[in-house]
Amino acid sequence: MHDSGNDGRRRVIIEGLRPQVDGGRFMVKRTLGEGMTVEADIFTDGHDRIGAVLGVRRAGETQWREVRMAPLVNDRWRASVTFDTLGIYEYTVHAWIDRFESWLHDLLRRVDDDDIATALLVGETLIREYGRGAPPAATRKLASFGAALRAGGEPLEVRRAVARNPELVELMRAHDPRRYASTSERILRVVVEPERARFSTWYELFPRSTASVPGQHGTFRDVEARLPYVARMGFDVLYLPPIHPIGLVKRKGPNNALAAAATDPGSPWAIGAASGGHDAVHPELGTLEDFRRLVASAAALGIDVALDIAFQCAPDHPWVAAHPEWFRHRPDGSIQYAENPPKKYQDIYPFDFETEDWQGLRDALTGVVAFWVGQGVNIFRVDNPHTKPFPLWEHLIATIKRDHPQTLFLAEAFTRPKVMYRLAKLGFSQSYTYFAWRNTRYEIEQYFTELTRTGISEYFRPNLWPNTPDILTEQLQFGGRPMFMIRLVLAATLGANYGIYGPAFELLEATPREPGSEEYLDSEKYQIRHWDLERADSLADFIALVNRIRREHPALQSDTGLTFHRLDNESLIAYSKHDESSGELILTVVNLDPRNAQGGWLELPLEDFGIDPTRPYQLHDLLSGVRLLWQGARNYLNLDPANTPAHLFRLRRHTRTERDFAYYL
Amino acid sequence: MHDSGNDGRRRVIIEGLRPQVDGGRFMVKRTLGEGMTVEADIFTDGHDRIGAVLGVRRAGETQWREVRMAPLVNDRWRASVTFDTLGIYEYTVHAWIDRFESWLHDLLRRVDDDDIATALLVGETLIREYGRGAPPAATRKLASFGAALRAGGEPLEVRRAVARNPELVELMRAHDPRRYASTSERILRVVVEPERARFSTWYELFPRSTASVPGQHGTFRDVEARLPYVARMGFDVLYLPPIHPIGLVKRKGPNNALAAAATDPGSPWAIGAASGGHDAVHPELGTLEDFRRLVASAAALGIDVALDIAFQCAPDHPWVAAHPEWFRHRPDGSIQYAENPPKKYQDIYPFDFETEDWQGLRDALTGVVAFWVGQGVNIFRVDNPHTKPFPLWEHLIATIKRDHPQTLFLAEAFTRPKVMYRLAKLGFSQSYTYFAWRNTRYEIEQYFTELTRTGISEYFRPNLWPNTPDILTEQLQFGGRPMFMIRLVLAATLGANYGIYGPAFELLEATPREPGSEEYLDSEKYQIRHWDLERADSLADFIALVNRIRREHPALQSDTGLTFHRLDNESLIAYSKHDESSGELILTVVNLDPRNAQGGWLELPLEDFGIDPTRPYQLHDLLSGVRLLWQGARNYLNLDPANTPAHLFRLRRHTRTERDFAYYL
Repeated sequence: MHDSGNDGRRRVIIEGLRPQVDGGRFMVKRTLGEGMTVEADIFTDGHDRIGAVLGVRRAGETQWREVRMAPLVNDRWRASVTFDTLGIYEYTVHAWIDRFESWLHDLLRRVDDDDIATALLVGETLIREYGRGAPPAATRKLASFGAALRAGGEPLEVRRAVARNPELVELMRAHDPRRYASTSERILRVVVEPERARFSTWYELFPRSTASVPGQHGTFRDVEARLPYVARMGFDVLYLPPIHPIGLVKRKGPNNALAAAATDPGSPWAIGAASGGHDAVHPELGTLEDFRRLVASAAALGIDVALDIAFQCAPDHPWVAAHPEWFRHRPDGSIQYAENPPKKYQDIYPFDFETEDWQGLRDALTGVVAFWVGQGVNIFRVDNPHTKPFPLWEHLIATIKRDHPQTLFLAEAFTRPKVMYRLAKLGFSQSYTYFAWRNTRYEIEQYFTELTRTGISEYFRPNLWPNTPDILTEQLQFGGRPMFMIRLVLAATLGANYGIYGPAFELLEATPREPGSEEYLDSEKYQIRHWDLERADSLADFIALVNRIRREHPALQSDTGLTFHRLDNESLIAYSKHDESSGELILTVVNLDPRNAQGGWLELPLEDFGIDPTRPYQLHDLLSGVRLLWQGARNYLNLDPANTPAHLFRLRRHTRTERDFAYYL
Repeated sequence: MHDSGNDGRRRVIIEGLRPQVDGGRFMVKRTLGEGMTVEADIFTDGHDRIGAVLGVRRAGETQWREVRMAPLVNDRWRASVTFDTLGIYEYTVHAWIDRFESWLHDLLRRVDDDDIATALLVGETLIREYGRGAPPAATRKLASFGAALRAGGEPLEVRRAVARNPELVELMRAHDPRRYASTSERILRVVVEPERARFSTWYELFPRSTASVPGQHGTFRDVEARLPYVARMGFDVLYLPPIHPIGLVKRKGPNNALAAAATDPGSPWAIGAASGGHDAVHPELGTLEDFRRLVASAAALGIDVALDIAFQCAPDHPWVAAHPEWFRHRPDGSIQYAENPPKKYQDIYPFDFETEDWQGLRDALTGVVAFWVGQGVNIFRVDNPHTKPFPLWEHLIATIKRDHPQTLFLAEAFTRPKVMYRLAKLGFSQSYTYFAWRNTRYEIEQYFTELTRTGISEYFRPNLWPNTPDILTEQLQFGGRPMFMIRLVLAATLGANYGIYGPAFELLEATPREPGSEEYLDSEKYQIRHWDLERADSLADFIALVNRIRREHPALQSDTGLTFHRLDNESLIAYSKHDESSGELILTVVNLDPRNAQGGWLELPLEDFGIDPTRPYQLHDLLSGVRLLWQGARNYLNLDPANTPAHLFRLRRHTRTERDFAYYL
C-alpha cells in the first residue's frame, strides 16, 4: 500500500499530507459550502518537473474528480476544494514526473545548436507518445506540433518557440499518460455536515416548565407557544432534556431528595416507565403527534428541535424486564444501579455494555436514534458519552449518518481532554467544552488557542455554554447581571457554536443549592418551575442583539481566524475574528471584571489587518452603535460593566480607495 | 486493523503512540545498548482501571516480550526498553480493563457493610474466573484467597484486608485474562544499528595521494602506512573516495579541465574502465588482496574502512557495452551523458533508472554493495543518493541490512531538506547536513534545534563535515587557522558524528580554484597531491585532543540532550550536552569570530543542571586544562582566537555532598 510500491520506477514521493486526523484513521470535518485546503510535500529525485492533482470523490464512487495542485515553497504543494453535498468524501493525492514540462525546461536552457536540435527531436518523440493515448483530433493536432518541432528548413529558434505554444502545453498536460504515477499512502476521508454544525445558537429549556399557568405541567403545545420568544432571541436550535416517560421507582424529589412525593415529577433523565421507554413520550407532555407538530412549527421559524440521548434506564423501564441481560447483576440477583462510591443513584440503571448481547443492545440504542430521526429530529445532544464504550459511538453515528447525513450529534462529555477529543474524532459534530470554567484572560487565551490553532480544529467543534442545568458557575453566582452579559458575549464571539440554558440564563438565575455547589437551588431537573419572561431585568433583548450580530457577520460564524491581541490590562480581553471570503473583521473587547470599569491600551496588528498605520480607521461598535476613529496600532479604551461590559467592533478603514472596500462589506 | 475492531467490547483506546515515523511507515532508529522510551495515550470510558504493556520482539518472532507501562499524567503512559542485538525489532502496545484493580479500588471506597459484603462476593467470583486460566498451583492459591474473602465468620474488615494482600494482587496481575484487550493501530518497527551509527569520527583521504615519495601514485600499502597517523588523531572511520578503475574516455584533467594529459589520473568518480567496474580495484592502487589487508590493519587499530558508492559509469565502464539498456539513448543512438544544462559531464554516464530492466539494474547495484561487504567493508558513503530513485535506496539498504545488520550507510545528499529527511527515513544510518554553511549563532541554533528537538531525530542522524573535497567554504578560505579550529570544535561537539577531509583540513588548505568557488585549487579529485604531514602549523595535535575528549565523555557521543544557552554577545555561542545515564554535563563555548577576542555574560539554567545557585561550581576546561570556579547563573568569559577559540568545560559541583557526585563521574 505504500507509495514506493514494488515498482522502482515510481519516483515521486508524497508525504506530510494535511489535513488528516491520526494518519487517516478518522475523518476530517467540514460543512456545506466550506472549503478544504489540502497540502502535501511532493518531490522526486534529481531535477525533473512534477505534476500533481488532488483527487476528491464521494465515498462509494470510483472516479476521482481532480484539482490541479500548485507548488508553494520548500516542496510543499496545495489545492483547495469546496463541498456542495452532505456526506462522506474521500481524497488523495496523485503525482508524477511531468515529462513534457521537464523536457521544456531543459530545452529552454540549451545553448549549443547541436543540443537544441537533439532536444527538439526528443520532444517530437514525446509528443508522439502522448498523442497515442489521446482522442484522434488531439492526436492529429499533436502530430502537427511534432512536425513543426522537427521542421528541417526552419531556423532553430522558430522550432524552439513551437515548444512553448500554449495550445501544445495545454494538450500535453491534458494527455499526459502520467507514467509511473504515485498515490498518497492512504485514502483520507472528510465528512461534510450541515452548516449548523459550524454555526449554531442553542437554547435549552424544560418543556414541563413552559405552562402559562403556574403549577401546571407544561406540554409540547406550551413549548410551541414559546417558540416565537425563542426565535425573537435569535436561537436556531431548541434543545429539550429527555421527553420520555419518567420512572416511578426510586423517583427523586426536589433538589435531588431521595424520597419523592406522589406529585413530584422526577428527573427526566430517569428514563422509562410503564408507558414506555426511549421511543415513547412522557404522557404529561402530550403525544408523539404533538411532538411532531412542535418540530414542524419550530422548523417554520428556522429552529431545529434537538433531543437528549441519555442511554440509561429507570428501574421500571420496559427494557429492564424485557432484556435483563443488558444490565449487570449483583451476586444477590438484583440489578446494579449507577454508583460512584460512596454516591448512589438508585433511580438509574446503567447498561452493561460488556453483555454477551452487546450487538443486540447496540442495535437497540441505534434504533432509538433512528426512531427520532423518523419523527423529524436531526440534532441530538448526547448525555455523558464518555461513560459508554467508544466503539458504540463510532458505530451508532456512522450508521445514522450513512442514511441521514443531515444529523448532528453534540457530545456532553465534561471529562479529561483526550477523552473529549477522542469522542469528537469518532464522529460527534460538536462538543461541550471547559468554557464554563475558563474565566481569566490567560485561561481563555490558552484554551482557545489550543482549540483553534492546532490540528484539533480539524475534528473538534467547540460548543460554548455559560450555564447548563448542571452547571451554575461560581462566576454567575457572584457576578450579577454584568457577569451574565460578559459570559454571553464571550460564548457568542469566541465560538461559532454556543448555547444557554434558559430561561434561567436570561432571568439571571444564580442561587446554588448550597454554598460551593454548581447545582441550581430548586433545579428544574427535579421540579417544575414557572418563569416570568417579562421581567424588566431580563437579558432577552441583549441576547437578541448579540445573536442578530452573529447572524449578520460571517466572521462570527466560524471558529477559524481567531486571534488574541495585546492589551496592557489583564482584566480586559481582546480578540478578532476574520472571515476570509468577505474580508470582514470583527474585534471583540470584553471587560472580565463585572464590578469595576477597566481601561487599557490595546495593540492591534495593523499590518495583518491591512490597515495603513499612518491613516485613520473606523471602529463601529455593533452593540452600542457608537463609531470610533482610531489611528495607529495602540489605542486606549475603557469599559464600564455598569453599562455594557463589551465592545463588538466592526473594523472599517476610513479612506475610500478601492482596496479599502474590503471592510465595508 | 483499527483498535475499535468489530468487537464493541474492546473499550480501551490507545493513541498518540511515540516514537513513530510517518504513522509507522518508516522505522525509528536506535543503536546497540541505547534505550527507547515509548509513550501512548491510553484511556477508557468511565472510571475503570487500566493495565498496559509495551510488547517488543525481533522481527520474525511471534511472541512479544512485555514491559509493563506506567501512567504519567493526562492519560499518558510510558515504558522503556534497551536493545542488545542488531537488526529490526517490532513494538506495539496492548491495554485492557484491569478488572481486579478496578474492583479493588471500588471495594476500598465502600462505606456501608452491605455494600462491602456484596463487593467481596463479586471479588470472589473474579478470583475464581482468573484462577480458571492459571496453572494448578496458582489456581489453588487463588481459591484460598477467594475463600478468605467470603469467610462467613470473619469480621468484614478482616475479609476486606485480604483483597489487598500483595500475593493476591501479584497473582491476579499474572493471571489476568486481559478480557477484550486492545492493541495499538499498527505494529511499529525500530532498527538497531551498531554504536558507530550514533558516535563516529570520520577521516576522508585520497589513497593516491598517500605515497611517501612526491609524484608517485599512492597505493593501499601507503594507506596502511598512514593508519597510525589517522589513529593517533582519534578517527575511527577511514573513508576512501571510489577505489575502482578510472575511465579513460573523456577523462578530466587537473582542475576539471576538459582535456587530460596521458599521465593525468582522472576523477575517481568516473568509474569503470577496461580493467573493471564497481567491483574492481584501480590497478594503480594495488590488488583486491591489498585492499582486504588494509581493511584488516585498520580494524586492528579500531578503524572501519568506509567505501564510496557512486552509481554512475565512465563511458568505458564494462556495463556500458554489456548493458546498453541501463542507459538513456539520444535520438542519434549515442548514450546520454550527465548534464545540468548548460553544464556537461561527458566523462560520466548516469543510469536510466526507468529502464525496462529496472529490476536487473537494481539487483546489480545491490550486488555491488554486497560484494564489498564480502571484502570486509561495513560502512558506505553514498554519493548523491538524491539523484537516484528513492525506492532503489529503500530496497538496497533493506536487502543488505537483512543479511548484514552491522552495515551503515551515510547519505551524501546536499539538497532540499525534505529530500534529505526522506532519504534518512528510507534507511540511511547517517546523513550529511547543511552544517558547512551554518555559521552565525542564529543559523547554528536554528538548525540544530530542528535536528535534535523535533521528531526528525528519531530517524535522521546528522554527520557534520567542516570541509569535503567538494566544499571549501568561504569561512575556511578567509578565516585562517582559528577558523579551522572553530569549525572543528563546532562539528565535534554539536554532532556525535562528524568528519573531516584530510590532510587538507589539518594542513589548513584554503585556496579556491577561483574567487567565489567552493572548489579547491588543484583539487585531489583530479590530480595527485603530496602533503607534508609534519608541518608545524598542522592541526593534528589539536584534532587528537578534541577527539580524545569525545571518546572520554559520553555526553559528546549522542545527539540527544543538546541545549543552547543565553550569551549577550552574538559572536559567542554556548551549548551544553547532557548524558542521562552518567549525569555528565559538557558545556561548549566557541568564539565564532576568528580575528578578535570576544567576551560576554553567559547565563546557565542552574536549576536544570541541578546546581545550587548559592554555592560555587567548578568548570574544568578539557582543552586548556584550566579550572574555573563560578557561582550563580550569570558569569563572564572571554575567548581569544589567537589562543584557543573555544572552551570545552566539564561542569563539576564544588561541594562534596552525596548528590553532588553526579558531576564527578
